[in-house]
Amino acid sequence: MENKVTLKELSKILNVSISTVSKALNDSSEISHETRQRVKELAKLNNYLPNAMAQNLKKKSTRTIGVIIPAILPQFFSKVLHGIETRANKLGYKVIVCISNESLEKEKDGILTLITSQVDGLIISLARETQTMGSYDHFQMVSQYNIPLVLFDRVTSQIDCDKVIIQDREEARKATAALFRSGCKNVAYFSAISHTSVDNERKRGYEMACENLNKRIFTYTVETNEDFDKFFQHEFIKRSIDGILVADELTAILLMKTALKRGLQIPLDLSVIGFANGTMGEHFITSLSVVDQRAMDQGIQAVDLVVDRIEGRTKEDPVEVSLEATFIYRESTRLISA
Amino acid sequence: MENKVTLKELSKILNVSISTVSKALNDSSEISHETRQRVKELAKLNNYLPNAMAQNLKKKSTRTIGVIIPAILPQFFSKVLHGIETRANKLGYKVIVCISNESLEKEKDGILTLITSQVDGLIISLARETQTMGSYDHFQMVSQYNIPLVLFDRVTSQIDCDKVIIQDREEARKATAALFRSGCKNVAYFSAISHTSVDNERKRGYEMACENLNKRIFTYTVETNEDFDKFFQHEFIKRSIDGILVADELTAILLMKTALKRGLQIPLDLSVIGFANGTMGEHFITSLSVVDQRAMDQGIQAVDLVVDRIEGRTKEDPVEVSLEATFIYRESTRLISA
Repeated sequence: MENKVTLKELSKILNVSISTVSKALNDSSEISHETRQRVKELAKLNNYLPNAMAQNLKKKSTRTIGVIIPAILPQFFSKVLHGIETRANKLGYKVIVCISNESLEKEKDGILTLITSQVDGLIISLARETQTMGSYDHFQMVSQYNIPLVLFDRVTSQIDCDKVIIQDREEARKATAALFRSGCKNVAYFSAISHTSVDNERKRGYEMACENLNKRIFTYTVETNEDFDKFFQHEFIKRSIDGILVADELTAILLMKTALKRGLQIPLDLSVIGFANGTMGEHFITSLSVVDQRAMDQGIQAVDLVVDRIEGRTKEDPVEVSLEATFIYRESTRLISA
Repeated sequence: MENKVTLKELSKILNVSISTVSKALNDSSEISHETRQRVKELAKLNNYLPNAMAQNLKKKSTRTIGVIIPAILPQFFSKVLHGIETRANKLGYKVIVCISNESLEKEKDGILTLITSQVDGLIISLARETQTMGSYDHFQMVSQYNIPLVLFDRVTSQIDCDKVIIQDREEARKATAALFRSGCKNVAYFSAISHTSVDNERKRGYEMACENLNKRIFTYTVETNEDFDKFFQHEFIKRSIDGILVADELTAILLMKTALKRGLQIPLDLSVIGFANGTMGEHFITSLSVVDQRAMDQGIQAVDLVVDRIEGRTKEDPVEVSLEATFIYRESTRLISA
């Protein structure tokens, strides 16, 4: 903990009294808004933690695991959380969760909140903004306090820690190849989650499959209903697209819905494979063939890794668990030969 | 805080040394498993909080709101969380979340975890087990520490605090009446969430509508796919049911899916209204008419109530915010006259 700054040091740097620093950190109205901001920013930058908390830190186990997920609405993250919850409960750990809402700043806040809540370990999937900006300095705090950390799904090579992933690139390559094998001539890639590590991997896998088979590459970023309509009016016809790999579940459903409403037959006119095995894709008519990201298992594995560190069973170099995804064959694809 | 027990008192009651109590609470392996269990149970029963934490408590604001939801998989709770997150963020508060997994014990644990994490306020939707057993003693801890509490969706009259609800009974009554007005002769009520307060309210509303119109009452608890098949093989035919009000979204989707696969036409042969406005019902073909529980708004209102208490703007008696639900008319119901 040699890098932890004290109140005294903060007061020196800022040239104000210790009492001012303390009051500013406690949001006292005696201190001007500006000074409060300045003090807090410096404190954050230097990983200052309130004394009592810092003293408590790591003294004893709270048997609590802190989790940060980038978003709560996609069912994938709910399912991972469910896996984390179930497994942690079984091992006698509690779980507290923060949501970064895809924001770098909120991810930082979340880490600080969870550290001051004295969690024994952290499980995190990176915010989109964190990945886009490649900004990982806030993770220094985690290693300074020696808190075991596991990243899952959205990970980075910039952080040295245990990781749980599925082989996104390889799974996307296999799914794309399967679409071609089922008879598709022109396969496109759709994504509404661009600039995440998983999207990069999936797109790369798609491209690899096309390159291997000497097929043309068509990638589309879709955000709104209009994007779907536009696609079917122009590109779909112009490029004779008859197969689409979609990077997330909701986008796959919206795509199929637009296609069906336009009178297209699935999988006859258009075959679709999505990522993530959610209830929406399962129960949609036509039901969606998917690469199952094994959300529950990712949660379970992440807990096992972090608890092994917390309880000292793993001490050596970072472990990367790469889960093999499973392909779930449903109604949105034609028969695929092995 | 006069009810808070000290280490000394615990040691007296248990007739062991203070050091034993302390070690037991810190899970020291020097102490037998049994003694650890006994000490921890007694400590919990008496709302013992570790000293350092107790001292910190309420000393200063952490600008953090603690949330406990009963389950993470239903999209309703994800949406409420999203509302809570968004609003809290706007007001400069952080959010940490625990999941009770419908268990009374885990709800207790969650409250303890959040209190020791020094949250400024709590937002909770009760676990199914808590409601079934009518066991609310663990909420004494919350009032002892003077922590503002807001209950939402699954609430109880047994706890004196601010609440956010929708008028479930009235909305169910109106939806049932609407099904009759649209031409249905025999309307049934389906639920997979029996023994929750919301289910009781919705069922009561359904029954009231039937009673008012002198119609027969048919209520079904459904849990598995077989329940749906059985229903269509027997009751559906025997009772000539042509309208169903469903207490939750997934059950409504599974019901429609079974009906469609059996060759029934929706809404011609069977009209369906569900509760909760999720993406699954919205995008299903046939799209689902729903009573919108206004999940986001419930989250926003809960944050506003709790922050008003935290910041001292509300001081008087508990406030109950009863949101008016909106009916979203989609393809699963016939035209409903006003």
